[in-house]
Amino acid sequence: MPARRVLLGIRRMSEPEQDGPLRVTVWGENVHERREEDVRARYPQGMHAAIAQGIAARLGERVRVRTATLEEPEHGLTQSVLDDTDVLTWWGHAAHDQVDDSVVDRMQEAVLGGMGLIALHSAHYAKIFGRLLGTSCSLRWRNEGERELVWTVDPAHPIAAGVPQPIVIAASEMYGEHFDIPAPDELVFVSSFAGGEVFRGGCCFRRGAGRIFYFSPGDQDYPIYHHPDVQRVIANGVRWAAPPSGVRRAAAGSSESPRAWFERAGA
Amino acid sequence: MPARRVLLGIRRMSEPEQDGPLRVTVWGENVHERREEDVRARYPQGMHAAIAQGIAARLGERVRVRTATLEEPEHGLTQSVLDDTDVLTWWGHAAHDQVDDSVVDRMQEAVLGGMGLIALHSAHYAKIFGRLLGTSCSLRWRNEGERELVWTVDPAHPIAAGVPQPIVIAASEMYGEHFDIPAPDELVFVSSFAGGEVFRGGCCFRRGAGRIFYFSPGDQDYPIYHHPDVQRVIANGVRWAAPPSGVRRAAAGSSESPRAWFERAGA
Amino acid sequence: MPARRVLLGIRRMSEPEQDGPLRVTVWGENVHERREEDVRARYPQGMHAAIAQGIAARLGERVRVRTATLEEPEHGLTQSVLDDTDVLTWWGHAAHDQVDDSVVDRMQEAVLGGMGLIALHSAHYAKIFGRLLGTSCSLRWRNEGERELVWTVDPAHPIAAGVPQPIVIAASEMYGEHFDIPAPDELVFVSSFAGGEVFRGGCCFRRGAGRIFYFSPGDQDYPIYHHPDVQRVIANGVRWAAPPSGVRRAAAGSSESPRAWFERAGA
Amino acid sequence: MPARRVLLGIRRMSEPEQDGPLRVTVWGENVHERREEDVRARYPQGMHAAIAQGIAARLGERVRVRTATLEEPEHGLTQSVLDDTDVLTWWGHAAHDQVDDSVVDRMQEAVLGGMGLIALHSAHYAKIFGRLLGTSCSLRWRNEGERELVWTVDPAHPIAAGVPQPIVIAASEMYGEHFDIPAPDELVFVSSFAGGEVFRGGCCFRRGAGRIFYFSPGDQDYPIYHHPDVQRVIANGVRWAAPPSGVRRAAAGSSESPRAWFERAGA
Repeated sequence: MPARRVLLGIRRMSEPEQDGPLRVTVWGENVHERREEDVRARYPQGMHAAIAQGIAARLGERVRVRTATLEEPEHGLTQSVLDDTDVLTWWGHAAHDQVDDSVVDRMQEAVLGGMGLIALHSAHYAKIFGRLLGTSCSLRWRNEGERELVWTVDPAHPIAAGVPQPIVIAASEMYGEHFDIPAPDELVFVSSFAGGEVFRGGCCFRRGAGRIFYFSPGDQDYPIYHHPDVQRVIANGVRWAAPPSGVRRAAAGSSESPRAWFERAGA
Repeated sequence: MPARRVLLGIRRMSEPEQDGPLRVTVWGENVHERREEDVRARYPQGMHAAIAQGIAARLGERVRVRTATLEEPEHGLTQSVLDDTDVLTWWGHAAHDQVDDSVVDRMQEAVLGGMGLIALHSAHYAKIFGRLLGTSCSLRWRNEGERELVWTVDPAHPIAAGVPQPIVIAASEMYGEHFDIPAPDELVFVSSFAGGEVFRGGCCFRRGAGRIFYFSPGDQDYPIYHHPDVQRVIANGVRWAAPPSGVRRAAAGSSESPRAWFERAGA
Repeated sequence: MPARRVLLGIRRMSEPEQDGPLRVTVWGENVHERREEDVRARYPQGMHAAIAQGIAARLGERVRVRTATLEEPEHGLTQSVLDDTDVLTWWGHAAHDQVDDSVVDRMQEAVLGGMGLIALHSAHYAKIFGRLLGTSCSLRWRNEGERELVWTVDPAHPIAAGVPQPIVIAASEMYGEHFDIPAPDELVFVSSFAGGEVFRGGCCFRRGAGRIFYFSPGDQDYPIYHHPDVQRVIANGVRWAAPPSGVRRAAAGSSESPRAWFERAGA
Repeated sequence: MPARRVLLGIRRMSEPEQDGPLRVTVWGENVHERREEDVRARYPQGMHAAIAQGIAARLGERVRVRTATLEEPEHGLTQSVLDDTDVLTWWGHAAHDQVDDSVVDRMQEAVLGGMGLIALHSAHYAKIFGRLLGTSCSLRWRNEGERELVWTVDPAHPIAAGVPQPIVIAASEMYGEHFDIPAPDELVFVSSFAGGEVFRGGCCFRRGAGRIFYFSPGDQDYPIYHHPDVQRVIANGVRWAAPPSGVRRAAAGSSESPRAWFERAGA
């Protein structure tokens, strides 16, 4: 008999209203905003607020958006909040290490059970991202405000709907290959930078029942989360990452299955 | 600048002799063998010895094989041993939790840097496997000694070379879908069982520079590691998983890259 | 300048009503039905009618379904019909060679432009399927009415929604590996048969803007298209395969793109 | 019983010498060379000769290289030549339509049976490439001699061995996304151009037993096939694409398989 691993039993989750709005939680570290005046000027209520507002503006009644930040108890991600979240977006940078491992465990379980995850920019180094992907997620970088062109390589992908070819970001932090991720299940966007580097900055991964979308533009030194095309991508990503059936089940453990367990009366 | 994650710097590794033999380490838990007389009768020197002998028998001078077990200091997987290993095979079942996290960290770094990993049977619940895949790796099971047929679904894959269609295993433990793994990068074998279940029991994954092959048959209650076709698959897997260039580099961290860093004199 | 290939210009297509029903065309060969009394008894209006009724029963107002058969002019698939089709389902067996190449060209162009395709059972040998996949699509088979179990290997996939694990088909034609297809972009179902064979019978492929779902059960000697779980899968497949944006564009040719072609005023 | 499709029976193929050199056939259209003085000056014996010499220089005794051109009988690709070829490289541009369909059929059968194919530059529009991939393979282009940087996105891939990051090509024809190909089974290189465009120019596909590598740089207006890094990539590609077992079997048709066909005496 196999030794039992972590994730267990059924958890009572709050259900979305039938055909109700997607419940989105936008998580922000909220460290740079409090620490650096220019970031605060750029994002007066925090990047998380700008991201949340972008989602709400584009999806209207189809979403119900809340925010959560690092400094809140349990980083604002109690079991109850996660049970009431269809899609979680994540932006972190300066304080990855301060995210509590028990919260990371909880998030991993939620994703494997169907919660969507949108990982933004420096979230490539977030504990939850590495937990789900298994690689170092390292990359090359240069922060000189050069122009970024975000090219769609899969125009029929739902996340690319209504997105111009290319998205032009006037000033951005360069992220360059080699990006140490597993081969994405779906590659949607590839960026180029003025210095010539390229980066697979729009990637989809499936882990358990959960859908993960990583989108690279978004350094705190630039107003990228106010950019309408970036907001469009994030909104599309939220819709794509939502659990298909609307209901999340806890990730199953292994089950002993007697012969003919699946036979049904009359089948 | 991105916050720096775990893996760092260059490690001095012992190099394989130029075009020298593959250095294989076969890790076994060695718990059932010591605890259960019938397992000991089946595998007098332990499953790890049978697996190692199978590899050596088929690959001869092309490999140099050693074993390591849970009860050894650092589970036999010191940094030095890992630096001197091209491919690690892993069989564990009853004591996954006893594997020290620092050894798991070390193994993950080695795989990301290019060390191959062959995960066998109940290793689907090994810490290192979950660390690299990010999912629960749960499955259905039934241990009634039923017949297993291992079907090749990718006959041109190197791991399928010389393997009959199907491999017939007279008595085996049923592993059945749903197997909670990420979609494999390559699917080589699918098993069926007398009870009707199926299982994607031969899968390849790439993580960083490392190649991972999971092969499901191998419960300790059956002489499966003496089965010539199973030994053939494992030998093929070892050859496939070996780092292409023969040399392993430590996984890179993120590096700040000034404009034109890649320009070369005369290029 | 690259030599120009086949597909060309913009075609005027009839648009679906805004947020209107999916327009589904169910194509059937209608040869066995006319030729064999037992098939006719099983499917009095033809397999295509049973398939169409199953889709309509499950999707109601969300679809508008029509049928087309081989013996109609242009096999019922004029340019106008294809322009008015969001998803085409295909069942053929005895007369693949009779499908006119110009109709196949037309269908390929439509799929690349976004029309979905559901290929059923012996459609693995349909001209359109081989045209899109590039492989021989050969397989093993045995027609002895043995039981088939259709196992879901990706339970979170939209096509698996509401589908029991496994689907039990009392009598079926065995299709067995090796199935010479490219590695599917997504693998949803794997079947096992009483004789022990397995088959990757539920696969998804993306070609251009089009989505293709192949589903293997469905020999004319069995009432499989009356099976409620099979109808559920086909209905799910139709929804999955529908072009995301609802509008189909002709596949683009290559375009010469001057420097800065993408710059936009004000960007 | 399934209707029988094209590919048939066992063909007698000339076998490579046991552990003998890879047999490589380099096919060139040889139209631009004869038609345009500057191309002839750049490639006095034709692009195919330069490509062949590059392969021979890097792989020495491990290969036996020959060339073939469009104007030869059967384009130099008789059944006998293909049976004696482990890897075929293809460069075509101005005369794709002139390649005889029966030769394309023959090549497709060979690839499905295990012959490797390296498709170079404008071969994206070659009949054989579209036959194997099923999509239009269209792209954006601009021929202004701008700089191309070929970035490795999978540094552990065998085709990337010994390749600098990035490859710098001083003057090249821009090929840009969207490149209408199926999602590659493996993505090795992504190019950027001075104008900002990106292109997935180094992709691997598996079709049947055959391996296909597409590599985009190589317009006839530039000396790209003399570029040492490009020659390195092509040599790596040839080694990667070689049939694993060294022997090629004809693609199998479908076979009726009676119950227990696979049982073996003593198994």
